[in-house]
Amino acid sequence: MSTSEMEQHPAHSLAFVTDEEHGIRVPVTEIALDDSPSGEANRPLRVYRTSGPGSDPVVGLPPFRAAWIAERGDTEAYDGRERNLLDDGRSAVRRGAASEEWKGAKPVPLRAKRGQRVTQMHYARHGLVTPEMRFVALRENCDVELVRSEVAAGRAIIPSNINHPESEPMIIGKAFLVKINANIGNSAVTSSITEEVDKLQWATKWGADTVMDLSTGDDIHTTREWIVRNSPVPIGTVPIYQALEKVNGDAAKLTWDVFRDTVIEQCEQGVDYMTIHAGVLLRYVPLTADRVTGIVSRGGSIMAGWCLAHHQENFLYTHFDELCEIFAQYDVAFSLGDGLRPGSTADANDAAQFAELDTLAELTKRAWQYDVQVMVEGPGHIPFHLVRENVERQQELCDGAPFYTLGPLVTDVAPGYDHITSAIGATEIARYGTAMLCYVTPKEHLGLPDKDDVKTGVITYKIAAHAADLAKGHPGAHERDDALSRARFEFRWRDQFSLSLDPATAEAFHDETLPAEPAKTAHFCSMCGPKFCSMRISQDIRNEFGSKEAQEAIAGMASKSEEFIASGGKVYLPETISVGSPEPSAP
Amino acid sequence: MSTSEMEQHPAHSLAFVTDEEHGIRVPVTEIALDDSPSGEANRPLRVYRTSGPGSDPVVGLPPFRAAWIAERGDTEAYDGRERNLLDDGRSAVRRGAASEEWKGAKPVPLRAKRGQRVTQMHYARHGLVTPEMRFVALRENCDVELVRSEVAAGRAIIPSNINHPESEPMIIGKAFLVKINANIGNSAVTSSITEEVDKLQWATKWGADTVMDLSTGDDIHTTREWIVRNSPVPIGTVPIYQALEKVNGDAAKLTWDVFRDTVIEQCEQGVDYMTIHAGVLLRYVPLTADRVTGIVSRGGSIMAGWCLAHHQENFLYTHFDELCEIFAQYDVAFSLGDGLRPGSTADANDAAQFAELDTLAELTKRAWQYDVQVMVEGPGHIPFHLVRENVERQQELCDGAPFYTLGPLVTDVAPGYDHITSAIGATEIARYGTAMLCYVTPKEHLGLPDKDDVKTGVITYKIAAHAADLAKGHPGAHERDDALSRARFEFRWRDQFSLSLDPATAEAFHDETLPAEPAKTAHFCSMCGPKFCSMRISQDIRNEFGSKEAQEAIAGMASKSEEFIASGGKVYLPETISVGSPEPSAP
Repeated sequence: MSTSEMEQHPAHSLAFVTDEEHGIRVPVTEIALDDSPSGEANRPLRVYRTSGPGSDPVVGLPPFRAAWIAERGDTEAYDGRERNLLDDGRSAVRRGAASEEWKGAKPVPLRAKRGQRVTQMHYARHGLVTPEMRFVALRENCDVELVRSEVAAGRAIIPSNINHPESEPMIIGKAFLVKINANIGNSAVTSSITEEVDKLQWATKWGADTVMDLSTGDDIHTTREWIVRNSPVPIGTVPIYQALEKVNGDAAKLTWDVFRDTVIEQCEQGVDYMTIHAGVLLRYVPLTADRVTGIVSRGGSIMAGWCLAHHQENFLYTHFDELCEIFAQYDVAFSLGDGLRPGSTADANDAAQFAELDTLAELTKRAWQYDVQVMVEGPGHIPFHLVRENVERQQELCDGAPFYTLGPLVTDVAPGYDHITSAIGATEIARYGTAMLCYVTPKEHLGLPDKDDVKTGVITYKIAAHAADLAKGHPGAHERDDALSRARFEFRWRDQFSLSLDPATAEAFHDETLPAEPAKTAHFCSMCGPKFCSMRISQDIRNEFGSKEAQEAIAGMASKSEEFIASGGKVYLPETISVGSPEPSAP
Repeated sequence: MSTSEMEQHPAHSLAFVTDEEHGIRVPVTEIALDDSPSGEANRPLRVYRTSGPGSDPVVGLPPFRAAWIAERGDTEAYDGRERNLLDDGRSAVRRGAASEEWKGAKPVPLRAKRGQRVTQMHYARHGLVTPEMRFVALRENCDVELVRSEVAAGRAIIPSNINHPESEPMIIGKAFLVKINANIGNSAVTSSITEEVDKLQWATKWGADTVMDLSTGDDIHTTREWIVRNSPVPIGTVPIYQALEKVNGDAAKLTWDVFRDTVIEQCEQGVDYMTIHAGVLLRYVPLTADRVTGIVSRGGSIMAGWCLAHHQENFLYTHFDELCEIFAQYDVAFSLGDGLRPGSTADANDAAQFAELDTLAELTKRAWQYDVQVMVEGPGHIPFHLVRENVERQQELCDGAPFYTLGPLVTDVAPGYDHITSAIGATEIARYGTAMLCYVTPKEHLGLPDKDDVKTGVITYKIAAHAADLAKGHPGAHERDDALSRARFEFRWRDQFSLSLDPATAEAFHDETLPAEPAKTAHFCSMCGPKFCSMRISQDIRNEFGSKEAQEAIAGMASKSEEFIASGGKVYLPETISVGSPEPSAP
């Protein structure tokens, strides 16, 4: 991607919030502001930053968490699983290599020492405050004990695979800022490794808190290596996708061994959370037969296909405890997949969806027995009035485990605009406690997102997440809104741009109507023109009533208005009311 | 505009729903659908159509309501007000003409005969069912008595100036489909008459139910003439904008006489509803002094400026009954402007806003005494959790008069994306009873919308309005969603496109990934690729369980699952649970 595209806005700079005592530095974006017309200086605003320190794709990021992990002394390096070219698909086997092998440093995989658990939940439950928790507390501007206790209770997770030391700790839980995920990944049909790394950096530049690599084509292993080594945010995957590639796309050929091997492969690479469709039980499959859109989750239908082919229970369910034991050794978090989520508003909140949720609740509690962090995935397509029930039911059944939803879309009639149909549902579901929102791009249902779609999806979801933070009264959430509103009121156009989620677009739109540089400082805008300006009149009002005489003036008005009301509150003679009024008045 | 742009989608055609008995034909858009893969035919879907019969801009539309109006025998033609070049601004006076005089037929203005009232509310209250009401009932697919009674009660309006016989009757009220308005209009800074007519046709093509002409530059009168003569939807204006032009932009110079003359001018042209900022009372102005963004409504600040300059009560309030008498003679509806609406989430639901609402409620009831139709305007910028209170308070205070809101925007941080920030609030406020939503385009706060912005704004608001209709359980609202979902499930790509709000965009997005024509009928999509397809597996499930053997099969499953549960619902040996599990389990 061109550097100019990745360059940050001139008014934005990298700053750090630091915890000297524990030697922790959290990067934030500092937005410089102009002085007010009054001459009053405006302090710069610091905002949450997801883009990390920036990396050269072929080198990757520094493993800054490595020291923290080593200090705990509960992990060991080991040879790890042997590289298998089939991990990158049949064409890699033919070629004897992936199409673009990872050339950067190959970290030696770590795992928990025998009998140990290395999850943040494990530490939290034992009262240990980790550097990861301190990092999160600084980042969220909250007490570290809130972080520890929410993680211990399972109401929040800090996805942080010990083999992804490049990632900056972040927390997903309803007591914290609402997070968003961006999906990237190649497919059998299209796209390349560099494009995917590009999308990763692009997504985190605009505010993605986590990124899921949903690759389904060739070079899955190597694409993921490039992504993980370059990612400052947690990486999620759906391992069944790669497992399916290993059995040539035939769901019936899937086995626990192939799946387990794939999970180990991804644990060693550093995947932070994995979607596991263990709630798609054999007996739930028939419940989808009469749906308008059946099963639309790819993972869900893979497992349903497997269950039907073998008439056996879902092997992800029957082997769930083994998965817990594996995840506990790397601190991989479960993202319990909703394989039976509705694919249309017609199928919302139906028996299949809620039956699966009951099972996800059971599995949540089982994972907690292993100190494994868990979030639960949610839909999908839900009409607006049925959205709230989804999060309230999940929170109750799953004892507050973080909810992670895709939208939901509140109507099916707008393909091409599903970032919008879903942002409406996402704001509603986040308002009532959903902790992370998976973005939807304009290409949803139609094709694979390109870079513009990724940006549009991320910014649309930042809007939904932030609107929910405001609605929840999250401390400090309104600061950016208020700073931008003050800039708008004072015609500090440059500050309006730099405070906005997408400064370049805001400035470009402004310039389409008023390109001239002076217009950026002019005390009028294109809606009203130079001759008249509503903001100017408001300034006059403030000058008149915001001053120290304000109180007298307002008092004067008030008394005038009391006289007025005393006089009957009418400036009309009664007869004017009846003029030409032969008809009865309003019923 | 190029005809290709205005051409309708090949699968869309103009059809009519007719009431033979009363000779009424309501145009609808019929969407032809392909057969299902099963061979089953899919009946075409008929959807609400706002674009009218189509017109040649220089000729205008046929005055099809003229006969209905004449038959009532309560109106008279008259000379009308004399044309004054100043109506088109000083440059027109210099030139001796507007820049593009209207060349089409100039209808002779009508008004009510002396002592008569010609409003739909007047007829409804007297138990008369007008052709306008029958047209609306067909259009909404509801009982005409519901239309009459809601209009009689003031809970719905049918904006239909007797001097705009070209318009197709539509209804605004919470018992009916949620409507959307698109704002167009030139400004002192930019744009031309033909551009505005272009935008009108463009907005109604995409689904605008009404259009407001907010012109503030030159040629206001003539621009409006072109718009009204070509508009199949009701036209709204804010007459104070033109009045301000007539006094050279100096709010202090405004007088009741200038305003009254402007209102008559617009009544005679055929404006269907007018925004009147009569609720901005002198004593409320100081309440805005301490706001973050003061007064942002242009009309509100004009009147506030006038009140302060003269230290007198708002002349729109003091002359309100005269306005009612005028509106009753033409059937112009009030859109009571919320001049003190908040311009930032920080100012939401404050004393100034709610004080004005109290006055709007008083004025609503006074207008009803004259049988004048009324809707009440609402904000603006409101955090998500405070949105609902706005509509519930307005509905209670105003005895159910239709609420007409701008958004509201649920955050201030996304200039350039305010169509989205506001669609979120719009869906919420419409869900609880707002009858019409004023669109917000991506250019809001930044500049004037161009054609693309108008389209984006309209489609975004169709989404919000439709999502609210679904949430309200409006009869039939889900039909389009279900038809599209079925098409999606059956891989009827062409039907997915033609059923969507923006078929061309949906198809273009699809083709970016899979351009080949065969792909449109291929039983896979780009997300999964040809090798694996979740929808196909769902089809297999349906074939297996949707069949007549389904019940046995499902029953079989269920019994299996009961055994399974009976056996303790575990497929694990107890000890596997405790393995490596020295720690306490979840608290």
